[in-house]
Formats: sequence, structure tokens, C-alpha cells
Amino acid sequence: MEDQAFFVKMVLDNWKGQINATNYLLNNLSDQQLMGEIAPSRNRGIYLLGHLAAVHDLMLPLLRFEEAIFPDLQPVFIDAPDHGFTAIPAASLLRGQWLEINERLLSNFNDLPVKDWFTRHANVSEEDFKKEPQRNRLNVVLGRTGHLMYHRGQLMLLKKR
Amino acid sequence: MEDQAFFVKMVLDNWKGQINATNYLLNNLSDQQLMGEIAPSRNRGIYLLGHLAAVHDLMLPLLRFEEAIFPDLQPVFIDAPDHGFTAIPAASLLRGQWLEINERLLSNFNDLPVKDWFTRHANVSEEDFKKEPQRNRLNVVLGRTGHLMYHRGQLMLLKKR
Repeated sequence: MEDQAFFVKMVLDNWKGQINATNYLLNNLSDQQLMGEIAPSRNRGIYLLGHLAAVHDLMLPLLRFEEAIFPDLQPVFIDAPDHGFTAIPAASLLRGQWLEINERLLSNFNDLPVKDWFTRHANVSEEDFKKEPQRNRLNVVLGRTGHLMYHRGQLMLLKKR
Repeated sequence: MEDQAFFVKMVLDNWKGQINATNYLLNNLSDQQLMGEIAPSRNRGIYLLGHLAAVHDLMLPLLRFEEAIFPDLQPVFIDAPDHGFTAIPAASLLRGQWLEINERLLSNFNDLPVKDWFTRHANVSEEDFKKEPQRNRLNVVLGRTGHLMYHRGQLMLLKKR
């Protein structure tokens, strides 16, 4: 059990570090910069912000914590590509939702008993989980930390040079 | 001990998945595409390939496995920015070095006894490690997986649309 608590801390510390680095980057990008494309004809910054918010929001049910807080994000920022909708939420709104979602996740992370991190996530059945125990809740955080890094590497391109 | 082996597997599986995804992407980028910039006035693909190769090569000593295989990569792809050197290795050479480095890492990963993953990495002293046991070798892999994702998100921009 001591080992498990230690692993959970390693993974969650990594997550928190990446969230903080992303928030630091976002605080240094103006709303106008977020409206720019990361590269010609590629996703706009605002789409990536909405996408990250939507994916993290869905971690709430995926980790079996609670329902998504802003389910309207998914059709715009996951199911559709950038420019799939002509009207998208304002950057200021998305920034607030992004922070709220991550706070809610962190609050749930802190409340989850260590051993429960090694139970199944919502997209795997009890039966499949017996065969593939690595499909646990902690692994979702591991994977989503990488997803965040992937898009942070892209958002970074919006910075002034 | 069973817990430790399971956790090591979770982290290494994640690493292997990201290496495979990166190799798949690189196989779908021509040498000419790698010479392009990921965005206007940003790093060229070939610089990022060399950078990833250099950082992974240095994981060999950082994980206390062995010396770096291609120490000449570091001055060009870590210490200097892109275009810091007028002559850089050909894409074909870097592709081969990248594969060789990752194979050597994987071979060392497979040989390392589970419990040794939780010993210190080379950049932390025995004394500091007692206070910060999360600065272990497995955490290096966790962090470098994120680093790889960060740059894979950028390399992806070189793909044709």
C-alpha cells in the first residue's frame, strides 16, 4: 500500500506540473493570440483550449467521479474539427471553464483513496478489466498528461518571437 | 513488489506506445518534409528529430545504464537552437541514430530489475534522493514520455494536409 501511494503521488505530481505549465503559458497568451492558428491552416489556439477543456471535462465521468460539468464542449471541441461551428465560446469563457474543470478534477483526485486509483475506469467493463488491470483510473491520468503535453507543444507556437 | 512491477509496466507501456506513435509519424514524413519548419520561423522537423534523439541518448547515462552513444548530438540539438550550426547531420543518419538509441534504451529497460527503477537517477545525489525519493529512474521515463509527446504534437504539423 505504501508503494501504491507513492506511485499515485508520482503520477499526480506529474499531472499537476503539466497543468501549471499550461496555465502559465495560457496566462501569457492574449485572447487575440488564442484566435491565431498554431501554424498555417492548422487548429486555432482557442480550439485547442476548448479541446483540452472538453477532454478534461470528460475525465470526470471517465474516472467515475461525476458527470461532465460543461457537456456542451464536446460537440464543438471533440466531435467537430476547428471551424466546424461558426460560433464558438469566447476565449474568456473557455479560460474560466478550463480552470473550473481542472479544479474539480483535482478536488476529486485528492478525495480518491489510493487503492481506488487501481480500479477500472468507466470505459472498460468489469470483465475486461480482470484481463487488463492496467486499464485503471491512474492510467487515464498518465495518458491525459501526455495528451496535454502534445497540445501544449502546439499552443507554445502562438507565443510572440 | 507485485505492485511495483505493475506500475513499472504501466509507465513503460506508455513509453513504448509513444515511441511507436512517433516512429509511425516519422515513417510518414519524407526527409524533405523534415527539412521544413513546424510553423513559420520555428524549429525545423530535422532539428526536433535530432533534439529528441539527443535527449533520449542522454537518458542512457541519466538512468545510469551506460554512456551516451552519440555524444556529438548534444551540442547541436540541445545546447544550440535550430540553425545554431550551419551543417547538421542528414535526416537519414538521424533517423538511424534515433532508432538505435531507443533500441538501446529499451534493451536496458528490459534488463533493469523492477526494484531498481525506484533508485535515484544520475542527476540527484544519494543525500537528496533520501529526501525526494520520487526523483527515481522511473520518473525520468515518465517525464521524457511527456517531452516526446510535446514535440510529437509539433512534428505532426509537418504532415501534408
